[in-house]
Amino acid sequence: MWARYSEFKQTVFELITVGYEILDGRILNTNSKWLAEKITAMGGKIIRMVTVGDSLKDISSSIREALRRRVDWIITSGGLGPTYDDLTLQGVAKALNRRLVLNRVAYEMLKERYKILAEQGVVDSPELTPARIKMAMFPKGAKPLRNRVGSAPGVIIKHGKTWIACLPGVPAELYSIFEEELQPLILKTIKKIYRVDRTIHVRKIAESSIAPKIEYLIRKYPGLYLKTHPKTIEAGVSRIEIQVSVMSNKEDEAVEKADEIENMIKNIVIEMGGEIETV
Amino acid sequence: MWARYSEFKQTVFELITVGYEILDGRILNTNSKWLAEKITAMGGKIIRMVTVGDSLKDISSSIREALRRRVDWIITSGGLGPTYDDLTLQGVAKALNRRLVLNRVAYEMLKERYKILAEQGVVDSPELTPARIKMAMFPKGAKPLRNRVGSAPGVIIKHGKTWIACLPGVPAELYSIFEEELQPLILKTIKKIYRVDRTIHVRKIAESSIAPKIEYLIRKYPGLYLKTHPKTIEAGVSRIEIQVSVMSNKEDEAVEKADEIENMIKNIVIEMGGEIETV
Repeated sequence: MWARYSEFKQTVFELITVGYEILDGRILNTNSKWLAEKITAMGGKIIRMVTVGDSLKDISSSIREALRRRVDWIITSGGLGPTYDDLTLQGVAKALNRRLVLNRVAYEMLKERYKILAEQGVVDSPELTPARIKMAMFPKGAKPLRNRVGSAPGVIIKHGKTWIACLPGVPAELYSIFEEELQPLILKTIKKIYRVDRTIHVRKIAESSIAPKIEYLIRKYPGLYLKTHPKTIEAGVSRIEIQVSVMSNKEDEAVEKADEIENMIKNIVIEMGGEIETV
Repeated sequence: MWARYSEFKQTVFELITVGYEILDGRILNTNSKWLAEKITAMGGKIIRMVTVGDSLKDISSSIREALRRRVDWIITSGGLGPTYDDLTLQGVAKALNRRLVLNRVAYEMLKERYKILAEQGVVDSPELTPARIKMAMFPKGAKPLRNRVGSAPGVIIKHGKTWIACLPGVPAELYSIFEEELQPLILKTIKKIYRVDRTIHVRKIAESSIAPKIEYLIRKYPGLYLKTHPKTIEAGVSRIEIQVSVMSNKEDEAVEKADEIENMIKNIVIEMGGEIETV
């Protein structure tokens, strides 16, 4: 159950995850959740998350589809490494009809990195083999984002009005590049909004019973975001969560509106014979 | 790093998750991982996972895109409930250009369900209100899948050569409908294959060092699936996982081939001065 303040323009994101290990159920896509939390907290709005395999065709089609939706940002994770099936940059290049060219800055980053890894004895030689150089082959016009944790640099490129950022799939590397390199760039593009979230925990009322009343509230107060989440029924008692989100360009206004809506819902619940849980 | 037995035709799936609570980072998409594990174990292949919000336009466009990829199965989760923003069936109907009509069997299921819930005191009345009837409004031609855990029935419909199944987002309901209702139907459509997986844990070799040798193996043995996963570097020692997957129409052949490839990789690792970890 929801409605959204249409008067607030948000910066719109699409997340693309690359890797068969997600598609075959081996691992949970925690990268997308982590990015979504960060981006939502910054005031951005994610409209789609897509996971494709390590396939040139599927990567490039997912990028093209996102570009067609005219999102502000596309953020990919995975597929930047040295191996044959790390195909993200090839997929981006194909989608944008650009060539892959050696990025000098990325090349120097890799040179520095493998020098240290060789000194530490992690690799036999600091030599930039073709597999390692591959990580500096960027779509023409792209720039590197420094990777302080692993080898493959992140990549950023603007195409039309859309920024495309490519991050590695290893979580520690993704976190580091996002927080230290990408976040400051994203923040510059974020349209400023204030959002206040409230969660009301309700017992003894079924979602289907409260639905018409919530619908009434939404019709009366256009611009409010309301969502009910049914929880499991335990010992014959139904539990639901009602999420209230209020957005505004002014902080005071958002808090005041959230207070008002929260009280109204609590009153409705009590009038219906339900209970408010304090968690 | 990979290659895949192209001679094995697999039944192809796309998973679509519906819900803003995934897109804003509030919850992890565990439903997709659970479904992916089940489907992979059954011999199916997932080619894409998509998450969209509770938006009619986004749901229907994601269904249309999957139909255009001519997948065998589309499985959606979420958006089947009684509330205003449960829009999955409307999205499917729009994508297929079908009307929503009352499904008599689903209506009877809901009647039965709300009778029990009213007897248990979970809901005030067993009456099928418009919000509750909404859960029996199916795209024309669809059939219900019994929900033994919650209210909203699952939905199944065939469009051209593609089966579309819609499951609720509440995990316990999704698990139950999948295992008891959907799995037997999927199994009938699965092209029989045997798959043997092996994971080799390697220390003291960097992914970029072993990459050329693995590439050589793949070229020599077309039809083998190999993937290297870099792990974090601890105390200057790099760790990688090498995943070997072999598929065949004959079980013996798959096991024999997996043994052969596993031994070859272990020999390569030892020749390069690496170590095999037993986990």
